[in-house]
Amino acid sequence: MNRHLISAADLSRDDALLILDTADELARMADRPIKKLPTLRGRTVVNLFFEDSTRTRISFEAAAKRLSADVINFSVKGSSVAKGESLKDTALTLEAMGADAVVIRHSASGAPQRLAGWVRGTVVNAGDGAHEHPTQALLDAFTIRERLGRLAGVNVSIIGDIAHSRVVRSNIHLLTKMKANVTVAAPPTLIPAEIEKMGVRVVHSLDEAVKGADVIMMLRIQLERQGKLSFPSLREYYNTFGLTPERLRRANSEAIIMHPGPMNRGVEIASDVADDPRRSVILEQVTNGVAVRMAVLYLIGGAHNIE
Amino acid sequence: MNRHLISAADLSRDDALLILDTADELARMADRPIKKLPTLRGRTVVNLFFEDSTRTRISFEAAAKRLSADVINFSVKGSSVAKGESLKDTALTLEAMGADAVVIRHSASGAPQRLAGWVRGTVVNAGDGAHEHPTQALLDAFTIRERLGRLAGVNVSIIGDIAHSRVVRSNIHLLTKMKANVTVAAPPTLIPAEIEKMGVRVVHSLDEAVKGADVIMMLRIQLERQGKLSFPSLREYYNTFGLTPERLRRANSEAIIMHPGPMNRGVEIASDVADDPRRSVILEQVTNGVAVRMAVLYLIGGAHNIE
Amino acid sequence: MNRHLISAADLSRDDALLILDTADELARMADRPIKKLPTLRGRTVVNLFFEDSTRTRISFEAAAKRLSADVINFSVKGSSVAKGESLKDTALTLEAMGADAVVIRHSASGAPQRLAGWVRGTVVNAGDGAHEHPTQALLDAFTIRERLGRLAGVNVSIIGDIAHSRVVRSNIHLLTKMKANVTVAAPPTLIPAEIEKMGVRVVHSLDEAVKGADVIMMLRIQLERQGKLSFPSLREYYNTFGLTPERLRRANSEAIIMHPGPMNRGVEIASDVADDPRRSVILEQVTNGVAVRMAVLYLIGGAHNIE
Repeated sequence: MNRHLISAADLSRDDALLILDTADELARMADRPIKKLPTLRGRTVVNLFFEDSTRTRISFEAAAKRLSADVINFSVKGSSVAKGESLKDTALTLEAMGADAVVIRHSASGAPQRLAGWVRGTVVNAGDGAHEHPTQALLDAFTIRERLGRLAGVNVSIIGDIAHSRVVRSNIHLLTKMKANVTVAAPPTLIPAEIEKMGVRVVHSLDEAVKGADVIMMLRIQLERQGKLSFPSLREYYNTFGLTPERLRRANSEAIIMHPGPMNRGVEIASDVADDPRRSVILEQVTNGVAVRMAVLYLIGGAHNIE
Repeated sequence: MNRHLISAADLSRDDALLILDTADELARMADRPIKKLPTLRGRTVVNLFFEDSTRTRISFEAAAKRLSADVINFSVKGSSVAKGESLKDTALTLEAMGADAVVIRHSASGAPQRLAGWVRGTVVNAGDGAHEHPTQALLDAFTIRERLGRLAGVNVSIIGDIAHSRVVRSNIHLLTKMKANVTVAAPPTLIPAEIEKMGVRVVHSLDEAVKGADVIMMLRIQLERQGKLSFPSLREYYNTFGLTPERLRRANSEAIIMHPGPMNRGVEIASDVADDPRRSVILEQVTNGVAVRMAVLYLIGGAHNIE
Repeated sequence: MNRHLISAADLSRDDALLILDTADELARMADRPIKKLPTLRGRTVVNLFFEDSTRTRISFEAAAKRLSADVINFSVKGSSVAKGESLKDTALTLEAMGADAVVIRHSASGAPQRLAGWVRGTVVNAGDGAHEHPTQALLDAFTIRERLGRLAGVNVSIIGDIAHSRVVRSNIHLLTKMKANVTVAAPPTLIPAEIEKMGVRVVHSLDEAVKGADVIMMLRIQLERQGKLSFPSLREYYNTFGLTPERLRRANSEAIIMHPGPMNRGVEIASDVADDPRRSVILEQVTNGVAVRMAVLYLIGGAHNIE
């Protein structure tokens, strides 16, 4: 297996399955009284975050600590990077200090890829610009497989800000590789050109997207990333692309509802839908995120140790 | 024992005694060469701080680490909460990630109580608005009992900003439950209406409060919480409600001096009093805080494990 | 051995050698599969940083964790110190919470010294104003000795902002103690008065400094500390005091190049020089920094434990 995880696009089907199966085993550990494994004892995982993302940072931190790794958090604000140090020098410095794995979140697409070219240790992409967020796609695939028993042939509809979402790109790469049928839906201004070439169906209404779906994946409206709104108003967005209980009735009766979080309740999703005890798997996604990240760190961060 | 610690008001006398007795045993551990117990190994404690309080956060962090828990610090600034996520979604997300206990500091009274209604894990209130700060009251009770040998019948005078202090409210609840005699003293503008109903004596001069006291607990003037001063000036405050060596002579010769910290030297307390080697127990309070928080995490955070 | 490390000036030659020899042994550990030693298990190291320095903080954090200490990071922003608490009260509070060692970075020269006068535990200076940064000097000496086999008689030229650099002061103290020959070079405005009294040779051109040098130590231009530039422009600085491949030819053919980082590439050092695979030891300095800090924490932070 590759010693980095940069993108779902580059991940082979076999490696993806290995990660999902390993996560399956690790998830069972969460029920034991002692949730800790000694696997990465003596190894150091650095969370190098150029963007704030407490949720993702904590998920990786919890995953690494359950594998007994030492975790060092490096938030870039006020660091030497802010004093003008290059990404390369930061990367080489962390490696020289003994970082075995660097988990990087960066606003620039491609930053994790460049990092991986500089260091001998492991690099895990925790989200880069509008490019990819591969562990999110893996935890989504894990959750779908766990709930529906399979990925092949499953109808997955992804709805929202398709144009600015790294979550979407990673999910499309991984899900199509796993033979799922992917539909994306958004207002025309939030659909990137030529996305059909990625092997997905494009629709422009929520109703069309929901109809026949086994999985409805709602995206966060990321106001902070868009600069300005590409649609008239949040209320208008809710009225046309928000997932309400009424609209949900058009989906298969067993369809599950997903969201990468954090949610804007009343914008892209109604609270009653988000909290649906039978269909919403949003909190399961969070739980599975820790297991999937443990699997990733275990397989690529500790490989030289395990063999 | 309840699996949360939200308020001293809700704490039974027996549970309070159990915490104090357990803290007593744990405090002895601090003298051993290895100060660590394996009790909470594999458990995750999240410090969820919506207000800055390095002192309280570090005390809980040290307590959890000495019990071998994994600790994750979550300061809300720049987090998804700042992006508009609700407290409930944050809480459920942390639980889904495997947080066994959440230690919460929040500017809104009642936030820990609401949190406890949402999660299955343990919630510990580390201070909520002007409501409660129960571990502070427990460490204060611990310190008094350790120094004076008892709580029942002890005369405790609490002096300062009674109106805005969660420390005072928690202390009144706990100390009266323990049969101590509590007096509060402040300028009239800093005394809340109807506080006598909590079973305390109210006086309006420092001299009256100090006279006959076994314990003199000075409060921090929290300029940042008041918005504006309720008294003419800091110098004026010191002249009338600051604890000076001269005023201290009216107390019992064995009276001890307490302060929850951080101190404003020369405002609510003279430096000579704060540093009195025989009577000031201010640093003992800090030390006991770690032991009391260990006891709380041990008893409620690890209960299902220990039995 | 003293239980604090405040300055290279106060460090005896024997103690410095003991630290370097211990670091030597600990550095070998980095090649083992499990890089952790149980030495400081149950001990708490607090990183008390009044100035941002992610690089130094992470180096100490990694060092402490490899010795199995619990590490608590205390960044002063938004803490009770910001609420006006004195350094003394902060120090005594940390000690009362059980901090066995405090690693302090402070903008005021002398802060670590004062801290050491107040606490019974260990204090390590991680940089104080323009005064000292003793672990930097130790890691530099370690790196020189490792590369050149000795310190006595080695010609070390330190070039850059001599006037504002704690790194320079610590290096001069330690290197002269070790019988190295130290030359400093800078524009006249960046040379402090009477520096010759420290036992160094002063020159005012880079070429003179480089000629015959075995070690060329470039300093960071610390724009943030100077307030305003003491030289016309960064380009002017590079043209006269930047280390370029051409200028490097005047040094001994085996001369090594050092920099404490973070580098301003193209200001004090050319990228080709910084990345010279044979001569640049800049990343080795970073690696050695962790080993040296482990040695310091091991020898002074755990002494009462080890004996």
